[in-house]
Amino acid sequence: MNTTEIIRKKRDGFELNRDEINFLVSGYTAKKIPDYQFSAFLMAVFNKGMVTAETAALTEAMLYSGIVVDLSAIQGVKVDKHSTGGVGDKTSLILAPVAAAAGVKVPMISGRGLGHTGGTLDKLEAIPGFRTDLSLEEYKNAIEKCGAVLIGQTKEIAPADKLIYSLRDVTATVESIPLITSSIMSKKLAEGIDGLVLDVKTGSGAFMRRYEDSIALAESLIDTAKAFGKKVIAFITDMNQPLGNYIGNWLEVVESVQILKGEKLESDLAKVTFNLTAGMLLLAGKAESIEEGYSKSVELVKSGKAYEKFIEIVKIHGGNTGFIETPERYPASKYKYKIEAGTSGYVNEIDTFGIGMAALELGAGRRTKEDVIDPKAGIIFNIKAGDFVNKDTVIAEIFTDNEEQIISVKNRILNSVKINNVHSEQVPLIRKIIF
Amino acid sequence: MNTTEIIRKKRDGFELNRDEINFLVSGYTAKKIPDYQFSAFLMAVFNKGMVTAETAALTEAMLYSGIVVDLSAIQGVKVDKHSTGGVGDKTSLILAPVAAAAGVKVPMISGRGLGHTGGTLDKLEAIPGFRTDLSLEEYKNAIEKCGAVLIGQTKEIAPADKLIYSLRDVTATVESIPLITSSIMSKKLAEGIDGLVLDVKTGSGAFMRRYEDSIALAESLIDTAKAFGKKVIAFITDMNQPLGNYIGNWLEVVESVQILKGEKLESDLAKVTFNLTAGMLLLAGKAESIEEGYSKSVELVKSGKAYEKFIEIVKIHGGNTGFIETPERYPASKYKYKIEAGTSGYVNEIDTFGIGMAALELGAGRRTKEDVIDPKAGIIFNIKAGDFVNKDTVIAEIFTDNEEQIISVKNRILNSVKINNVHSEQVPLIRKIIF
Repeated sequence: MNTTEIIRKKRDGFELNRDEINFLVSGYTAKKIPDYQFSAFLMAVFNKGMVTAETAALTEAMLYSGIVVDLSAIQGVKVDKHSTGGVGDKTSLILAPVAAAAGVKVPMISGRGLGHTGGTLDKLEAIPGFRTDLSLEEYKNAIEKCGAVLIGQTKEIAPADKLIYSLRDVTATVESIPLITSSIMSKKLAEGIDGLVLDVKTGSGAFMRRYEDSIALAESLIDTAKAFGKKVIAFITDMNQPLGNYIGNWLEVVESVQILKGEKLESDLAKVTFNLTAGMLLLAGKAESIEEGYSKSVELVKSGKAYEKFIEIVKIHGGNTGFIETPERYPASKYKYKIEAGTSGYVNEIDTFGIGMAALELGAGRRTKEDVIDPKAGIIFNIKAGDFVNKDTVIAEIFTDNEEQIISVKNRILNSVKINNVHSEQVPLIRKIIF
Repeated sequence: MNTTEIIRKKRDGFELNRDEINFLVSGYTAKKIPDYQFSAFLMAVFNKGMVTAETAALTEAMLYSGIVVDLSAIQGVKVDKHSTGGVGDKTSLILAPVAAAAGVKVPMISGRGLGHTGGTLDKLEAIPGFRTDLSLEEYKNAIEKCGAVLIGQTKEIAPADKLIYSLRDVTATVESIPLITSSIMSKKLAEGIDGLVLDVKTGSGAFMRRYEDSIALAESLIDTAKAFGKKVIAFITDMNQPLGNYIGNWLEVVESVQILKGEKLESDLAKVTFNLTAGMLLLAGKAESIEEGYSKSVELVKSGKAYEKFIEIVKIHGGNTGFIETPERYPASKYKYKIEAGTSGYVNEIDTFGIGMAALELGAGRRTKEDVIDPKAGIIFNIKAGDFVNKDTVIAEIFTDNEEQIISVKNRILNSVKINNVHSEQVPLIRKIIF
């Protein structure tokens, strides 16, 4: 097989076969195919797309570039949840203990924050002592013992994805549905799961801003999961405003604990999280419907079992539960600053990307992979779209060690919120559920 | 400026400005932008195309990556001819002396053969002693003294083109009109020309097989030449069969000399060549029309002045004119083999690409840039489309030192010629002339 000929075929819009795709991916991973040929291939895929069979073959080649964890010796149905990322999206921290408390096995390999979006690993690591770098052996033991585990991508898992993602990042080939699909699915399929719940965000803080693109990505992910014989359900959820009110790593742990302790059960965060948990229960056979899964989840929270499970997860990862029990003990940011609306009216539009970038500037996020995060930094964002505010309503409170950022972040947040006299109807939280 | 952002802009189909294009080309030439980003850019250009202003900016950036020869001190209008390449295309060898004999200054920087097409430099180097590696100083002197010069691309000329072309070759981004245009024009504009005649081939032996593509390429070349204030004329010429009868480097010198000596003046080769020469005379103000230029060219051949000029050119390049005067003295191939039609009927279709590849297999061409050419090897191809042949008509004679190739080349040639009972109308040699 000839690399240039395969690139040419895709460039001209033809469908590649499994062998051709495997030739490219395994050749690239083995450093036999140079970066410059693979990047031309990526751009051709970006432009011409891939059919389901091609995306599945790409996923397969990336998956088998590394090891696939075998969890068959562990009893129970293993179900993970994957989110395409957003601002204030801390659902994993809540749903992992809830689903585990319901008897679902939850093997999660999560990611870190980059740009405006946060990452589950960073949030968990805000808990002093919490280790996300468990070995695959420790990972298996944790699932067996406590029912849920949350680790980072190890070097044994889909190494092709790491290589390809780095190349996509610098060649403007990130926003391609088959490439996103294979990147997500090659890692998820390596976890040893039986089922997968997908949370595909849509709106101003999402990776896919347009609803149609979110649907297309969800369908591509579902088709690929099914091609590998996995149970799957996708929720298209709204990301036109931050999810919940707390943004920033430790702040998001705090808000997750609030929910797990039974507070704010009517919040957007609780609703989205329990829908996703319900999906997990449904796939695992622990509920007959989303509705049943939802009420079971709420029950597990109210009974205290979900919170107990969370403490168990933190302990198994080496985390200090003292800070969970008494969050007041956690180190405070040097600067706290309240931001007032400055005008009165209805909150009409929130540039969620802008809010995510504001949190990053305070120290909560990363511009590049090498940046170091300040776990204390972040925003408590008090408003939701549709709320009425007065001139002096505190719309947000910011936390940072970096005094220089305060003014620019204040302006950024004010510029990200449109307040006027129009009281528009709000989009639903769950836009669509796709099986 | 940010490389990834510029790639993204082109990827999404937006027009790049001059500064952005120059940033990419100068950064790539200076090795500040890596191959993998530039290849993603090339694939984006392949897919989304470029408008005239972008192609001109790309050409300009590539042109000024090297030096532009200043021929202003030399009297007379400087006109070159460029062909997109074909099989048996030896027009440069004939038109350079004819146009120089008419008083046109002909500064030619030519290329080498690759794949099924031959290259002017290889043909000239078949003449023992002929040096195509003149320095730019020798190049200027030769134009001044003898009116015509034919050299290879020196390292001072458009170094960006060399780099980019090598990358295109291995990333399936060769067949793109803006990329072809900038590659051709950056070299041609560096020659110091006032005008350019373009021979854009169309058909089974051409780079652009489809007529519409040839027209599009011609128009892109014309637009770019005009953007640089150059006089330009393009001929779309037929390449559905080899041009002339001789294919192979020394064989093509022999056929060129035949024409220059006044033989075969009614052949397809003579007609195409004198049309192109007429274009050169027209641009140089040596003729009022193509027709006048054509008859002037024929006159210069008949009077012996063109042949005299050819001998002068060979001498100034250090070539041994003895072999030109008595070609019988040239070393003979070890094997000569006659191929009979094997069937009777009309020659209906010729796969000219196949004929070019057959010549390559005999030793006349290169598969890769590193291959060494046998100047003696080649084919005398006796038939033209529309000819009637008998079973025992010798359609071709092959010359090679490589005995092993004979049978496969014979089959290749027979498979490249379709003989049947249909006597179809032939396409005209000159398909279109565009100013």
